[in-house]
Amino acid sequence: MSAELNLQRLGITLPEPPQPVGAYVTWVRTGNLVTTSGQLPWKGGVMQHPGRLGEHVTTEDGYKATRIAGLNALAQLKACIGNLDQVRRIVRLEGYVHCAPGFREHPQVLDGASDLLMQVFEERGRHVRIALGIPDMPLNACVQIVVWAEVD
Amino acid sequence: MSAELNLQRLGITLPEPPQPVGAYVTWVRTGNLVTTSGQLPWKGGVMQHPGRLGEHVTTEDGYKATRIAGLNALAQLKACIGNLDQVRRIVRLEGYVHCAPGFREHPQVLDGASDLLMQVFEERGRHVRIALGIPDMPLNACVQIVVWAEVD
Amino acid sequence: MSAELNLQRLGITLPEPPQPVGAYVTWVRTGNLVTTSGQLPWKGGVMQHPGRLGEHVTTEDGYKATRIAGLNALAQLKACIGNLDQVRRIVRLEGYVHCAPGFREHPQVLDGASDLLMQVFEERGRHVRIALGIPDMPLNACVQIVVWAEVD
Repeated sequence: MSAELNLQRLGITLPEPPQPVGAYVTWVRTGNLVTTSGQLPWKGGVMQHPGRLGEHVTTEDGYKATRIAGLNALAQLKACIGNLDQVRRIVRLEGYVHCAPGFREHPQVLDGASDLLMQVFEERGRHVRIALGIPDMPLNACVQIVVWAEVD
Repeated sequence: MSAELNLQRLGITLPEPPQPVGAYVTWVRTGNLVTTSGQLPWKGGVMQHPGRLGEHVTTEDGYKATRIAGLNALAQLKACIGNLDQVRRIVRLEGYVHCAPGFREHPQVLDGASDLLMQVFEERGRHVRIALGIPDMPLNACVQIVVWAEVD
Repeated sequence: MSAELNLQRLGITLPEPPQPVGAYVTWVRTGNLVTTSGQLPWKGGVMQHPGRLGEHVTTEDGYKATRIAGLNALAQLKACIGNLDQVRRIVRLEGYVHCAPGFREHPQVLDGASDLLMQVFEERGRHVRIALGIPDMPLNACVQIVVWAEVD
């Protein structure tokens, strides 16, 4: 199936890929691997659902924020390779959840990005994942993700 | 030396590879690289030594838990490539230690996995490592590790 | 431009690559990728600017410490490939900032390594970056970084 057609079918228009907030770039290709910088839940230049899970942000909103960060990651991938149908498979998702002490629902929050990747890439979207709880996050974002993909 | 023979010599029977706790898979191969999802100290379906280092878990028990997580990582590798003798070398170990404020013995805890990798793969087990202290961990695990390997 | 000439021009003499503090190695090459272990701000065997950003360490000193960790990472790369002109490009910088609750200036701290990489490798130094705040760090270092590079 075509990732680009899936985006249309899902009614998703990818955002402009967010710009870096320091002396780095937002994606790099090495061989057939592409990896992104840490992606935050920016939407229209506004940080969505800022704060800590388990304190200011519900798990449901954390899921939504992680999906938004996932859309930004897809925009970075597309900026790199031009067309998401060039993705052979998603390799790895790194998920860092900004959370209060005792929060345990990291997997549910990160499914916001994992579900998006599966909807867009189907079987080729299957990825390994790392999930960590982080007490302090740049710009007070509630989540930060990184996507690694294998491309043509 | 043969990694499979070393397992026998060490009296190690690998567990069933643990299943994911979210919308992801437990290993991915891209080219000659295999990488695992975050592995936790599951043994027979029971989380071993849950809690924080420096609070509920001693450094000695953290070492044991990290070895158990390492056995799970080996089980994932074997599920991917069929035979651990296909491993050319271990590349990278990511070690995230669930710990109380002020804990400093992350290296000793993570040696539980590093020592296992060296016992099984000998020179081919030499890897780079990253060690971080994390205040909140999915499922209250005391440690989470990721293994990257280069395979035939 | 030559990375080695840039080092000379900048008056930089690379340190001896720091040795590991556990059962691992400090760099690994897999295919055309080299990745380092977590690098700390060691200088002449002394940890520079230990403690937490936002508590014991200023953002300015954190920047300096991150540059020192970056020099150690360059020393590891050089130990691996012999000559920094063999670097085709820097791929990824992982930056873990040891910080007090509420600290937000992770990007400014990590620019200490990013700026160094750009000065030495110029366009080939452009990398993706991940920035996380960590409450407990091995050896009380204020920052830990990892560098991934693509080499000839």
